[in-house]
Amino acid sequence: MSRAEAGSEEVRPALGEVYKAAGHAHILGLTGVPGSGKSTMVSKLVQAVRKDGRKVGVIAIDPSSPFSGGAILGDRIRMSTHTMDDGVYIRSMATRGSTGGLARSALAAVDILDAAGFDLVIIETVGVGQDEVEIARASHTTVVVSAPGLGDDVQAIKAGILEIADIHVVSKCDRPDSNRTITDLKTMLAMGINVSIKNNEDKPLWQVPVVGTSSESGEGIDQLLATIDRHRDAHRTTALGTERLRRIAEYRTFKTAEDLLRSRFFVSTSDRVSALVDRISRRELDPFAASDELMSDLALYR
Amino acid sequence: MSRAEAGSEEVRPALGEVYKAAGHAHILGLTGVPGSGKSTMVSKLVQAVRKDGRKVGVIAIDPSSPFSGGAILGDRIRMSTHTMDDGVYIRSMATRGSTGGLARSALAAVDILDAAGFDLVIIETVGVGQDEVEIARASHTTVVVSAPGLGDDVQAIKAGILEIADIHVVSKCDRPDSNRTITDLKTMLAMGINVSIKNNEDKPLWQVPVVGTSSESGEGIDQLLATIDRHRDAHRTTALGTERLRRIAEYRTFKTAEDLLRSRFFVSTSDRVSALVDRISRRELDPFAASDELMSDLALYR
Repeated sequence: MSRAEAGSEEVRPALGEVYKAAGHAHILGLTGVPGSGKSTMVSKLVQAVRKDGRKVGVIAIDPSSPFSGGAILGDRIRMSTHTMDDGVYIRSMATRGSTGGLARSALAAVDILDAAGFDLVIIETVGVGQDEVEIARASHTTVVVSAPGLGDDVQAIKAGILEIADIHVVSKCDRPDSNRTITDLKTMLAMGINVSIKNNEDKPLWQVPVVGTSSESGEGIDQLLATIDRHRDAHRTTALGTERLRRIAEYRTFKTAEDLLRSRFFVSTSDRVSALVDRISRRELDPFAASDELMSDLALYR
Repeated sequence: MSRAEAGSEEVRPALGEVYKAAGHAHILGLTGVPGSGKSTMVSKLVQAVRKDGRKVGVIAIDPSSPFSGGAILGDRIRMSTHTMDDGVYIRSMATRGSTGGLARSALAAVDILDAAGFDLVIIETVGVGQDEVEIARASHTTVVVSAPGLGDDVQAIKAGILEIADIHVVSKCDRPDSNRTITDLKTMLAMGINVSIKNNEDKPLWQVPVVGTSSESGEGIDQLLATIDRHRDAHRTTALGTERLRRIAEYRTFKTAEDLLRSRFFVSTSDRVSALVDRISRRELDPFAASDELMSDLALYR
């Protein structure tokens, strides 16, 4: 997994084999704004999954330094109760600002856990940022976590991810203002914002539910897991899954090609790339004309 | 600008010409976590820039729906005081989750304002998310906004962007706990986290300052602008700028090539791409093997 995360081109054929061996696990994307209580919820969910003997992997994508690339450990420490359990695997990943490849690392890690026989793999990302939201969507079931009482600015951001939810969860339901958050979400759902695939009788194949939980009391966690399993079953047995799997394959193929482009562009010691960048820097050449040439060059360069 | 944002391939040659005509404005990247008071600060900064007659453009990247693509207007409304002023141009952009191209739209908009004769162009992004942070770094001067009293979770995210600052600003300095935030930042700087380019006498060409402001009272805003201008002068007259301009050119070239890849991949109606995605979805083919083929195909396809 470390080699996959480092992202050298040599590891690609091996990851290709891993990809083909995978496809059995259920992939859960879990996202929410900062302060929504995502990490604690994941920890509780892991406990619930373990109760019925299933193996569970967690890939947690932490915002962190674009320079050092080191993940922030704060949230992870809360998960330390699981460290002695062989049926649980937890990995934190950093968002690597300057080199990209966040999706590559995360999705390779998901494949590895899937191929290794984990029943459920959770990808946890912060629900802000283009890549982060896309990664959470590259899953069979997407859970969006909301919390009562966050500031206005944060709520505005939250609005950007509400529509990607297969399941809404409201955390911190021990708080009196959580009912308001639940009502707001249900009102929004009633307005038909979530896209639904319909069956032959024109009924939606999935109604997006709102589940209230409290990580404090443990309330609602079992219900959340049951709801996730219900979505997994619908995903596996109805048209819900067919479209989803194709969209994920499309996303993964594009991301892999993008990553190949990135590695060839930045790893390349070619004087040609370097000369182009110099001319662009002096505005003698524009990046649009240059990228046409580069694409042709880089496709040939192996 | 709307055509640039829509992102069709036809507009690329025109944007290429705009790029070559640009290069005179000073580009300011301003970023900070949700709740840090970025937007209000930008509004005050615009007022200060206008006082000495300079023309200023603002490109504000709002987190928003990956489905509707509509920008959230809340923050923008605060800027309505500038709407009658010809020397000010403000544009909000949405983060378009599924189609990408955020950097393309933002950077094309910067070029257009630059070529149109704006003296200062501000790119405001939320400081969370790989793309968002990269866009803020693609500027001559990067300002990171911090605020006192944000929650732990938000502070942790903030840590991911502290190192990209040329200038730190602490907003809300009317609050008593702001001194603590200023001290924390100064301590961090003393630990030498920020990278500095040195002159012949081994002295750093730029010492990252911490500026305290209050949007409430207007305190510190003039000092912030003077500090930005001081960095602009250092950028223009020392080795500080040379490396920076090359890094920006490299980033822009890569992003443009990536965007070309994206548009050819998703716009392509080629049966071949479609057949590859189907096989990947069934795990008969892996995305790594497929992307090698795709890159060659897409480079040839015009």
